[in-house]
Amino acid sequence: MRVSSQVAPEEVIHEVRQFVRAELIGRQTDLDTSREIPFPIHEKFRGIGLANWWLPEDLGGRGLGLEQGVDIVSELAYGDAGVAFTAFISVLGTTMVSLYGGEDTRRAFLAPLAGRGGFCATLGSEQAAGSELARITTTATLDGDELVVSGEKFFSTNADFADFLVVIARRGEDHAEHVAVILPRDTPGIRMRRRWSMIGLRSSGTYQVSLDNCRVPAANALEGSGLRLLEIGLNASRVLIAATGVGVARCVRDLCMEYGRRKSLGGGKLAANQVFGAKLADMEMRISAMRDVCRTAAREFDAVMAGPDPAGAFLGHGTLKSAITAKMFCGQAGWAIAAAGSEMFGGLGYTDELMIGKLLRDMRHVSIIEGGDDVLRDLMYRRYVVPVAKRI
Amino acid sequence: MRVSSQVAPEEVIHEVRQFVRAELIGRQTDLDTSREIPFPIHEKFRGIGLANWWLPEDLGGRGLGLEQGVDIVSELAYGDAGVAFTAFISVLGTTMVSLYGGEDTRRAFLAPLAGRGGFCATLGSEQAAGSELARITTTATLDGDELVVSGEKFFSTNADFADFLVVIARRGEDHAEHVAVILPRDTPGIRMRRRWSMIGLRSSGTYQVSLDNCRVPAANALEGSGLRLLEIGLNASRVLIAATGVGVARCVRDLCMEYGRRKSLGGGKLAANQVFGAKLADMEMRISAMRDVCRTAAREFDAVMAGPDPAGAFLGHGTLKSAITAKMFCGQAGWAIAAAGSEMFGGLGYTDELMIGKLLRDMRHVSIIEGGDDVLRDLMYRRYVVPVAKRI
Amino acid sequence: MRVSSQVAPEEVIHEVRQFVRAELIGRQTDLDTSREIPFPIHEKFRGIGLANWWLPEDLGGRGLGLEQGVDIVSELAYGDAGVAFTAFISVLGTTMVSLYGGEDTRRAFLAPLAGRGGFCATLGSEQAAGSELARITTTATLDGDELVVSGEKFFSTNADFADFLVVIARRGEDHAEHVAVILPRDTPGIRMRRRWSMIGLRSSGTYQVSLDNCRVPAANALEGSGLRLLEIGLNASRVLIAATGVGVARCVRDLCMEYGRRKSLGGGKLAANQVFGAKLADMEMRISAMRDVCRTAAREFDAVMAGPDPAGAFLGHGTLKSAITAKMFCGQAGWAIAAAGSEMFGGLGYTDELMIGKLLRDMRHVSIIEGGDDVLRDLMYRRYVVPVAKRI
Amino acid sequence: MRVSSQVAPEEVIHEVRQFVRAELIGRQTDLDTSREIPFPIHEKFRGIGLANWWLPEDLGGRGLGLEQGVDIVSELAYGDAGVAFTAFISVLGTTMVSLYGGEDTRRAFLAPLAGRGGFCATLGSEQAAGSELARITTTATLDGDELVVSGEKFFSTNADFADFLVVIARRGEDHAEHVAVILPRDTPGIRMRRRWSMIGLRSSGTYQVSLDNCRVPAANALEGSGLRLLEIGLNASRVLIAATGVGVARCVRDLCMEYGRRKSLGGGKLAANQVFGAKLADMEMRISAMRDVCRTAAREFDAVMAGPDPAGAFLGHGTLKSAITAKMFCGQAGWAIAAAGSEMFGGLGYTDELMIGKLLRDMRHVSIIEGGDDVLRDLMYRRYVVPVAKRI
Repeated sequence: MRVSSQVAPEEVIHEVRQFVRAELIGRQTDLDTSREIPFPIHEKFRGIGLANWWLPEDLGGRGLGLEQGVDIVSELAYGDAGVAFTAFISVLGTTMVSLYGGEDTRRAFLAPLAGRGGFCATLGSEQAAGSELARITTTATLDGDELVVSGEKFFSTNADFADFLVVIARRGEDHAEHVAVILPRDTPGIRMRRRWSMIGLRSSGTYQVSLDNCRVPAANALEGSGLRLLEIGLNASRVLIAATGVGVARCVRDLCMEYGRRKSLGGGKLAANQVFGAKLADMEMRISAMRDVCRTAAREFDAVMAGPDPAGAFLGHGTLKSAITAKMFCGQAGWAIAAAGSEMFGGLGYTDELMIGKLLRDMRHVSIIEGGDDVLRDLMYRRYVVPVAKRI
Repeated sequence: MRVSSQVAPEEVIHEVRQFVRAELIGRQTDLDTSREIPFPIHEKFRGIGLANWWLPEDLGGRGLGLEQGVDIVSELAYGDAGVAFTAFISVLGTTMVSLYGGEDTRRAFLAPLAGRGGFCATLGSEQAAGSELARITTTATLDGDELVVSGEKFFSTNADFADFLVVIARRGEDHAEHVAVILPRDTPGIRMRRRWSMIGLRSSGTYQVSLDNCRVPAANALEGSGLRLLEIGLNASRVLIAATGVGVARCVRDLCMEYGRRKSLGGGKLAANQVFGAKLADMEMRISAMRDVCRTAAREFDAVMAGPDPAGAFLGHGTLKSAITAKMFCGQAGWAIAAAGSEMFGGLGYTDELMIGKLLRDMRHVSIIEGGDDVLRDLMYRRYVVPVAKRI
Repeated sequence: MRVSSQVAPEEVIHEVRQFVRAELIGRQTDLDTSREIPFPIHEKFRGIGLANWWLPEDLGGRGLGLEQGVDIVSELAYGDAGVAFTAFISVLGTTMVSLYGGEDTRRAFLAPLAGRGGFCATLGSEQAAGSELARITTTATLDGDELVVSGEKFFSTNADFADFLVVIARRGEDHAEHVAVILPRDTPGIRMRRRWSMIGLRSSGTYQVSLDNCRVPAANALEGSGLRLLEIGLNASRVLIAATGVGVARCVRDLCMEYGRRKSLGGGKLAANQVFGAKLADMEMRISAMRDVCRTAAREFDAVMAGPDPAGAFLGHGTLKSAITAKMFCGQAGWAIAAAGSEMFGGLGYTDELMIGKLLRDMRHVSIIEGGDDVLRDLMYRRYVVPVAKRI
Repeated sequence: MRVSSQVAPEEVIHEVRQFVRAELIGRQTDLDTSREIPFPIHEKFRGIGLANWWLPEDLGGRGLGLEQGVDIVSELAYGDAGVAFTAFISVLGTTMVSLYGGEDTRRAFLAPLAGRGGFCATLGSEQAAGSELARITTTATLDGDELVVSGEKFFSTNADFADFLVVIARRGEDHAEHVAVILPRDTPGIRMRRRWSMIGLRSSGTYQVSLDNCRVPAANALEGSGLRLLEIGLNASRVLIAATGVGVARCVRDLCMEYGRRKSLGGGKLAANQVFGAKLADMEMRISAMRDVCRTAAREFDAVMAGPDPAGAFLGHGTLKSAITAKMFCGQAGWAIAAAGSEMFGGLGYTDELMIGKLLRDMRHVSIIEGGDDVLRDLMYRRYVVPVAKRI
């Protein structure tokens, strides 16, 4: 059933919830332990018209804003964080392409993703260039009207089954300059070196990728510094990673409440215990705060996107402070919730009966991927603390 | 200089900042150590047309929303949290009067506060009824067309110099019912038993008050359950208490940065130290999150107020979850910031040279007054966790 | 090689370290992912004469004290927490047997464990009686000079391959009384219902056990209340669970330092980064404190054991406050260390390359098994806070 | 009444408790608000023979070890942290003099302190040399057989009323070398620039001191590097600062319990509330751990002192890791206890009625003075983490 783009926001969320109930609830253990990417589930998501929901309407997409994306991702991640991650992480690359690709490029690469689903992967980090992306050694060298891209990329989610890759590289002609280049997945020379075995998000796929003289038209290079473009795209994906934390946290809370209602304690139910109640209240407060920071960041992103020149405006901004706040805060608060949750079930909480182990492992990623807290603190300090001389 | 109510929000903030710079910065130690309420400062605040900024325009007030109030209070508290508290705490009582007082009552008591400044105090808690307001023993008994109010109230800010008091009492006729009654300050029988010596907010005044057969017209009783009305008013004041935390936190951060830029360490400046930077980044992240939760709560409050029947809507809501979140979160995050701040200055941080001791003491109130975290956790659990059966 | 019981403490530790290097280091992933209990490793441990190192010398054991046990377990857990757990958890049951079994019983059951290794399992918790052991329904009913034991036990480590089980049951004759009974593993009626799949400690085996009319001589009942005896045994095992946390924490720290020395950052090594250094220092401080509380608790236990009537003294004590402190503190501090550790490796920290995921999962058990923090807090409050009227 | 040095440890503690009950309990507010050093109280302490209890027996002192000092200070600080601080801080200087002063020097300066009480002050930090003591500019220059000491010292407790000062200075002849020199308090040129107004410990006195060509015999210089000697003395004082935290924490706990037993809540007493109980249990656990780390550090110190060459051994050690652990840990755990405590009393906890504000302010010093956590983390990392290559 195709959802029209005219539906109200609550209806979209309603659709997503139905999808989650039908496709994810009850299958979490499978999703966690199987080594397969659950493509049939993603196909069903495409079926309700929500694959890559953020793609612009002029390209046939749903054109939903990041604020709505926060709620969609929170619902998906309530079901399974790995499925959510697979579904939204394309936003990193497509945001770059949509803002900084030429009109033909946008149409060639984004319209298909809007129309028939599919994925995009971004290849930034390298083994020796994780927190310091400026040290990447992958090169994109002009050869006639083609770019030749070679290098080794360390972590890239969705890369194996993506329609195209957005690769951050140095310019062969000038190593001080970085560029973002689109490589169709079937470009000769692209090789998956391995799929990483990850602590959580186990229904998603993250790969180490080798690029060996991959040739694409020079027009596949996006306009602007590749590193800056990456920062810009990360605003969207970091907020959605934060929103994943909201979904996982809500699931932890509900798991606890369900157990609290069932479990007898001291002649009553655990849910009537005051300490239990205080812990659940703390979770609820934190979940509210997490949602607030995600939505605030998303609204700021959407406001820039709604402006007259979002591409130019974002080149000025680079990172958004609100997006960094959302990711750091949700990583920390979400972890506190998951850790507290794992102590609520007595010995059962140390078994695989209750899914809490999975939730704990899934939650962990929020503070680690796409910029750990140390990296983000460094950014935050240099960009948003030091430059502000005196506040009053 | 009278600011017109047509000015843009940023201009109001600009005004407040100028006021803070002129009247508060540099005088914090005086404000902290003097036992005087700084009325001349509040008079100046009235002079720029901002006294009781939230009072409705139909009563001659500025009609500024709670969202704007968050920013105003953050600025004031940057200067001095006690001055901020004195300036905004009337919102608790005036919100009750504005929503649940008859038209004559509103006009009689609120219009003067809008026109010439002045204060209102709310008298809720009693010695044996702090976290359990339902146990109050103050009574309001009908005697002809008068209400006779008697009791002992434990904590009431501004009571001594308020124009009127809003007293929460049991109905003499039916002890199961509570009522909120307006007592003009000069009503015979009102006596200040003592001014509390407080840990912080020392430029504000909080009093223990004795009410001995205070007679007022029966029309001074607001409509609806006094306890419910109090909850409703607390939505506004709790959000502004949270916003006080934002202001104090910003002041801590700036004090640290100022010191970091000045203090030599290891051949450079402390501000270049990575650990220092990481701590400041954590502060900044937390301050952003604090502001987000305050504004979210304020927007929700403002949305209810902008609806067709705010009085009715609020009777349905009682407390707002977002307001509880804001107060709990800002209390905890603010305390973490202040505590971290107090460790940034070496031994100087343990002296009265640097104001950090004052900021630490001022910050402490956010988690304690108008409902400590244990009280709020209990509310949160019973109202916002337990009733929600199953989320998906 | 058989270590004589006369060797100095440091030599024992030296032996254990050699064992860990030879048998565990480098095999952690196998131990974590294989579903086999690594009996050959335990056989090697027996080979160096350290199996059940705490068993008394009069029964042919090594007679090492709990304080030395803390160091042994810290070393073993540095290698693999599951192996450590399997190796020491018999202490829970053997302590009960050693103190409260008759001379023949002690000799019959403990001497073999001292001589040729082997395991003992304790069966306390039931599905509806985890934190509230007084609610167990397993019964031990006298039938002539035999006891007939029936019930369902929820969590019991080592039960499948133990030489004997110590079962906590109600007396069939008087449900208000509890007893601890020894069941040889081959007693008819003992059935492993399932082996739990656990979050961590995955090289150990914990079982749900069904007891169906298991008949043993009445002399197999230990003297004293079964619940009290269990509390007494838990003093030893809880301290060693805490010591497991020390070992895992040390391993996290070393994993971080190794990575910090190798990883380039900003032109130098990560180990030269100030934030990294500060985090490692915090870990080191916490590890020191963890070791201190473990040793303090162990010394207190050893002092009681060295007294003239340890069995009587322990009946008076029940739980030791120091043992509860050790378990709670090490669970919390260890978790903080493991969580911080998992953020030290960038994206690699979210993969299975670096063992940090295993360490995080292993660490989690310290706060959960044999009394979660909520259960221990309740004990602590009722026994060690409330009864102490006024301290000075 | 003079206590003989033969009394058992518990009797000493009993004496101290009686002293605390008689002299401190009930006078805390006075001690906190008066600007006077309470000499009569210290005189009483001398009267029971405990002034400078650690001074060696060969000099007429009590010769009590640091482990016993931990308990004495914990008791004193239960009464008033400032009194405790004044009473024990001389240990910093006397330890240096006792270990590294010539026999005549020891006898001349320490015997009087043992015999008739009195104080010693250490002058280390300077305005620009707080965390980096190597940057001090105070000089001690040889002039014939005299040393001439000049400089500005920033923080020195007891300096005004001390019998003598131990000053850390550069050697005038070789600025790379530091020396510790004893200055009798009445040496011309010593001037108190100001007494610091401190956040807590307000019954103690800390001074900024000016030294202007102070002349003393060259024999007043202690043997060895002044910076190293200072580190050695700090081992003792840091452990006792940590022990102060234990005492203040115990007082917070008792204040909470007393209130919990008195305060009605929900038809019962607050002490019966589960959340209250859980918080008190956490406090108790932390207090136990704090005491454990203090005693462990003290035992290590005492073991070195009991060795054949403590002066030589300490020159090898410099700082003790256990002492750093004790101070860092007790500062953090103590702060958590005090902060939690301040939220236990509802609005009363924000007033000066209950002493909790004082306890919070007193506790703060543990993490700040004599090396804040950042300084200690740096030491810990460089000395106890980096040098240890690989642990197993």
